[in-house]
Amino acid sequence: MNARGLPVHAALQQLVSDDDVLRFGGLPLTRLAQRVGRTPFYAYDRARIAQRVASLRAALPAGVHLHYALKANPMPAVVQLLASLVDGIDVASGGELAKALDTTMAPASISFAGPGKSESELSRAVAAGVLINVESGAELEKLARAGDRLGVAARVSVRVNPDFALRRAGMRMGGGAQPFGVDAALVPALLARIAQLHLDFHGFHLFSGSQNLSAVALAEAQAASVGLALQLAHDAPGPLKTLNIGGGFGVPYFPGDMPLDLAPLADNLQRQLHKLALAAPGARLNIELGRYLVAEAGIYVCKVIERKLSHGQVFLVTDGGLHHHLAASGNFGQLIRKNYPVAIGNRLHGGEREIVSVVGPLCTPLDLLAEQMEMARASDGDLVVVFQSGAYGLSASPTGFLGHPLPAEVLV
Amino acid sequence: MNARGLPVHAALQQLVSDDDVLRFGGLPLTRLAQRVGRTPFYAYDRARIAQRVASLRAALPAGVHLHYALKANPMPAVVQLLASLVDGIDVASGGELAKALDTTMAPASISFAGPGKSESELSRAVAAGVLINVESGAELEKLARAGDRLGVAARVSVRVNPDFALRRAGMRMGGGAQPFGVDAALVPALLARIAQLHLDFHGFHLFSGSQNLSAVALAEAQAASVGLALQLAHDAPGPLKTLNIGGGFGVPYFPGDMPLDLAPLADNLQRQLHKLALAAPGARLNIELGRYLVAEAGIYVCKVIERKLSHGQVFLVTDGGLHHHLAASGNFGQLIRKNYPVAIGNRLHGGEREIVSVVGPLCTPLDLLAEQMEMARASDGDLVVVFQSGAYGLSASPTGFLGHPLPAEVLV
Repeated sequence: MNARGLPVHAALQQLVSDDDVLRFGGLPLTRLAQRVGRTPFYAYDRARIAQRVASLRAALPAGVHLHYALKANPMPAVVQLLASLVDGIDVASGGELAKALDTTMAPASISFAGPGKSESELSRAVAAGVLINVESGAELEKLARAGDRLGVAARVSVRVNPDFALRRAGMRMGGGAQPFGVDAALVPALLARIAQLHLDFHGFHLFSGSQNLSAVALAEAQAASVGLALQLAHDAPGPLKTLNIGGGFGVPYFPGDMPLDLAPLADNLQRQLHKLALAAPGARLNIELGRYLVAEAGIYVCKVIERKLSHGQVFLVTDGGLHHHLAASGNFGQLIRKNYPVAIGNRLHGGEREIVSVVGPLCTPLDLLAEQMEMARASDGDLVVVFQSGAYGLSASPTGFLGHPLPAEVLV
Repeated sequence: MNARGLPVHAALQQLVSDDDVLRFGGLPLTRLAQRVGRTPFYAYDRARIAQRVASLRAALPAGVHLHYALKANPMPAVVQLLASLVDGIDVASGGELAKALDTTMAPASISFAGPGKSESELSRAVAAGVLINVESGAELEKLARAGDRLGVAARVSVRVNPDFALRRAGMRMGGGAQPFGVDAALVPALLARIAQLHLDFHGFHLFSGSQNLSAVALAEAQAASVGLALQLAHDAPGPLKTLNIGGGFGVPYFPGDMPLDLAPLADNLQRQLHKLALAAPGARLNIELGRYLVAEAGIYVCKVIERKLSHGQVFLVTDGGLHHHLAASGNFGQLIRKNYPVAIGNRLHGGEREIVSVVGPLCTPLDLLAEQMEMARASDGDLVVVFQSGAYGLSASPTGFLGHPLPAEVLV
């Protein structure tokens, strides 16, 4: 709570500064900005990503395999880094597949999910030898035909639409009618069909939601996923080799959000590994994390063009905005706009502080990066930093909107 | 109202079909899709854009000058077409400026508005000889310095933040504290400063909101804008040459929306022209329309990859989605998601009809183009058409999201 009794942002992990200037990637932000040479830019911290993976590995049981969901941040340098750190990469399109294949990750450790895969995408994925999570009976037939054409038994898992949803998720992807995966009740028939086709069955993929900060809800969904998969495995055409129970680990974005507690998840995953070892020995348990691995390692930096007063309110007009960071503007799947953590990067605490709104150069009131937040008093040329911006930032933004230049993107 | 007592979409203007196939740009949609060669694509109808401009000119008094707000659809072919039809082009960035200057539009009839213009943008605009709508005192100083460096008296209008807002607007841009324009109370001091600088004063720009379907509300805002401008003109350093009162004319997108009634607007604009002729003879009255000129002339077309059943509900999984058309997915400034008009383009009425949801290939529940809408029963390969897609479509969408290819874009 702050002095006004309102919830505040969770403390930013690893926020360090020298002389009140944010340090990022081992450099003062001002120096980093000079190195990049222009604003706005996204910067991702190599060490923080590696630390996040290391601390996850330390917290979770060794038997859990860690996959990176490339959609969270598809910058090639980030993908290359993560390929060297995780056990697999999950992709959601032919474009993402190509990026994953450009890394050192073995194709067998790359998996491809998503409704509406095209014939070309299926064919490329079969040729690459990656694991394909089939989303429907119709897709299964296309996949088998692609395999026949190429003379390859496609590696296949069944993406299941479970009957349960992930409670308290930012976004639900299971429970009831969904375009994702195969309804649990229809899976046995699909497994029977797989047995008839020239396919290499691997297992199941269940993904019930994302951006969840409740360890209890996540543990429930994990246990239910493993239970459902083991039950479905009775009808499988071969032993269960791989079980991907999704991810959904959230990060704190907004005032009042608390970081996810990993301890109960670790305990729960240990129990799931035990269940799996008994019922399906040799099966590999994967969790698939995107946002959780990269979100907190990234910042978006823009420059104050003008400190403007209107009717007594202060607006920092910057060269960055929703065209680069739609999520921070509150226009990407958020019902109510809330502020990301935002600060003046070259003046973190500052002498004088004030309540300001940070806006971009677009002619629309949607172009708002911070609404009425307290920060150090800024002036022209100061650097505004939007934290927690390493996931679903640039790639989830309408970069062509109003014809401004693309931001730079660096991994430091 | 429909049989369920719910509001329905307004009848689509100029919806024509042959053998139940939508005709667009003079071609059956199936033929157009073959001409484009791939899906998804956006198509804009040259004749409908021309008709819209012609019908506006017929409805409104001859003294009203019609400008195109390029941000609504920046496709170069569309901009070239509109340059030949309207009296001016309004741009919001250096990128848009370059596109406008590539047309036959005289630079003097191009104007540039937007908070946070960069030094480079200001300098390019001065060099081009376009009209610059200044948004603040600080920007005025930068503009004057740019003019001095270039040896050119920059053409300048003052963008005013009026004390009133446009009632019933989809998006308000006036009234209270705003990053746009100069608070009305601060304008006299700014005008005095213009008189001291080497600048070519032209007039005022007022823009109080957008996407408004109420002629009464628009007429009120127009009258208030002209009234305020005439009052501010008393302190101007020269005669009022140009008054841009913005646009805000809405189009019907959602069930229950009714098309804007132009007749009361025409009457009102006639009165405003009269006021202007008396108080500021020779002043030119501009309205600035983006969406209204192009939205209804555009469609977004994607292909059904699969008709999928989940828990008894039908999903049409297509190759298009929110990465191409964020607004239709309900994620661009809409508090409550509503359906755009959507139909099966090669089977408009169809024999059998059903309630379906249309989704895209993205692994997110946000990727929804139609939710539980009645349309002809579709199967694989059928073409889904999202109407009213000519404005704020492709350029306002996160095209990089999940690594799918860009859609094609054609003007027919």
